[in-house]
Amino acid sequence: MSTHNPSANPTLIHVLRGGIVESFHRGAVAVVDADGGVHTQLGDITRPIFPRSAVKVLQALPLVESGAAERFGLSDAELALACASHGGESRHASTAASMLAKAGVDAAALECGAHWPYHDGSLKALAAAGQQPSALHNNCSGKHSGFVCLGCLMADGSQAGGDRRAFLKGYVKPDHPVMREVTAALQAATGYDLAQAAQGTDGCSIPTYAIPLQHLAHAFARVATGVGLSPGRAAAARRLRQAVAAAPDMVAGTGRFDSRVMAQLGERVFCKVGAEGVYCAALPELGLGVALKMDDGNTARAAEVVMAALIQRLLPLQGEDAALISSLARLEQRNWNGIHVGTLQAAPALAAH
Amino acid sequence: MSTHNPSANPTLIHVLRGGIVESFHRGAVAVVDADGGVHTQLGDITRPIFPRSAVKVLQALPLVESGAAERFGLSDAELALACASHGGESRHASTAASMLAKAGVDAAALECGAHWPYHDGSLKALAAAGQQPSALHNNCSGKHSGFVCLGCLMADGSQAGGDRRAFLKGYVKPDHPVMREVTAALQAATGYDLAQAAQGTDGCSIPTYAIPLQHLAHAFARVATGVGLSPGRAAAARRLRQAVAAAPDMVAGTGRFDSRVMAQLGERVFCKVGAEGVYCAALPELGLGVALKMDDGNTARAAEVVMAALIQRLLPLQGEDAALISSLARLEQRNWNGIHVGTLQAAPALAAH
Repeated sequence: MSTHNPSANPTLIHVLRGGIVESFHRGAVAVVDADGGVHTQLGDITRPIFPRSAVKVLQALPLVESGAAERFGLSDAELALACASHGGESRHASTAASMLAKAGVDAAALECGAHWPYHDGSLKALAAAGQQPSALHNNCSGKHSGFVCLGCLMADGSQAGGDRRAFLKGYVKPDHPVMREVTAALQAATGYDLAQAAQGTDGCSIPTYAIPLQHLAHAFARVATGVGLSPGRAAAARRLRQAVAAAPDMVAGTGRFDSRVMAQLGERVFCKVGAEGVYCAALPELGLGVALKMDDGNTARAAEVVMAALIQRLLPLQGEDAALISSLARLEQRNWNGIHVGTLQAAPALAAH
Repeated sequence: MSTHNPSANPTLIHVLRGGIVESFHRGAVAVVDADGGVHTQLGDITRPIFPRSAVKVLQALPLVESGAAERFGLSDAELALACASHGGESRHASTAASMLAKAGVDAAALECGAHWPYHDGSLKALAAAGQQPSALHNNCSGKHSGFVCLGCLMADGSQAGGDRRAFLKGYVKPDHPVMREVTAALQAATGYDLAQAAQGTDGCSIPTYAIPLQHLAHAFARVATGVGLSPGRAAAARRLRQAVAAAPDMVAGTGRFDSRVMAQLGERVFCKVGAEGVYCAALPELGLGVALKMDDGNTARAAEVVMAALIQRLLPLQGEDAALISSLARLEQRNWNGIHVGTLQAAPALAAH
């Protein structure tokens, strides 16, 4: 810990109240092209950070590349859910259940743990019905169902001779064949040596590896373009981007940033939030990848607003596209009586960029 | 906004995962004695910040000093609720209702707005019962009920001739007689000219004034000692501290930091959280006041941990007292499967202090 004494990253977001800056959020941003050239840098983009759920699309590449998605006939909605941090709405839980059923297993195969839905209305509906949440409501249940589908395909071709349940057990562990495939895809896309990286445990129990923003942005430029990926992985990345654009409500949910942005902009943006203030995005028409992390780990009012401000600056937008992104890049804050009390907006270091 | 370019405050909290610092929180701390002498300074303690709910005890001084608390026979629990940011548990809502009933009015007098209980179990119970939250569930309903009690006393002695409802209307506005009393107490305690201060609107619609941490800490040293307050306000401060120590579950609620700390330490600590990462505390046996603000506004995992670390360093503690504060100053983080994934703890700049 004694070596952690970074120079301060720039302030990217101002939280205004009563005409002054009440609070503010620092962070770092990397925008990189498919050749690895740095298009934009704010703050330290070389310090390794845990990308958490922002790289789910990279972790879902083996599901498609292996042929598992085709073998089990996964739909756009199911592939989008495999890339999702969803709100645990009933449509999310049922889609995860459908993925598992197609692979011949059920929710008992999931090793992500259970938690109450993030989506407020779904939480209250579950409570009102006297029910408890299951692993299907876990925001990562789609990603895990994707891992399970991949594992079922691998089990069929393994020495386990098709005993899918036995093969799947412990799939969240770093050395399980499923997770080795997932980690290999992450390493290939980022070009970062994960064997040497700091390793933590994510909220859903799979490993997360510390990777610099510069490498993460490069990976998303590869997702955007296919350049630098094997043909199979490039095709898988394109398939997953298309699936999320076709079923954007699956990747997050009602009222959520990623779903709203992709429902409006379609394939022009692939963006994905991660815990602790991380965001990654692919911008295919520009051939660019974006990765950012807020120092303090704030997602909802910092990382999202920075991502909106970056989309606003990078992409030419018009009409309703421009209006949506503009509304997400400057959030008016109201109190319990609906009185306007403040604003969240890009700080000068970001706004001037 | 262009003038807001502060030098970076020190990192006070590290969020550790996988052996590295995943996220971190910067902030400033002032510890001041009753004569205004600075005992401890970390970061910028001269920048005005909105104290939000951290100064509720100062805002409740007129309720006691005016004689309204005695006139209406308010209990310890009711006085503690007047200083509270509570969880909206049924005991909190019923205590606020009791305060209002003693003053001859009801929840219709409250101008704080309604929101769902912050206490998770109470939210789910309300949802399960098919009910909606009322203003009594607002975390500020006790403070507002105190304002209403003060207003009812003032109405009885005013030209309004005892028309309490007419007199109360608009009590949240800065120029209402009730709020003028509240602001006068805040100004006297902090010694800061609020007429010149930046003014914002708080979550519950009353004004909040930007005050430097140094002045806020001085105010809490005055609350701790009575030194520098008028005799009536000094007695009111003592009465409120005693009430909260006698009914600590009222000031926050089940599992909450302030309630846990004061249930264990009694009158040795008066501490109170505010929105946007603010904390204030009075330490009577040391004659010190404490005020801190996290730059990023994070309360639950930053301001609280800093406050615990400061109590640990400032107060001599033994046995269960020491054990509780130690457990709050270093929080082990577990994921949905109960697996240990990280730690929240004081960063070197705070730990070494």
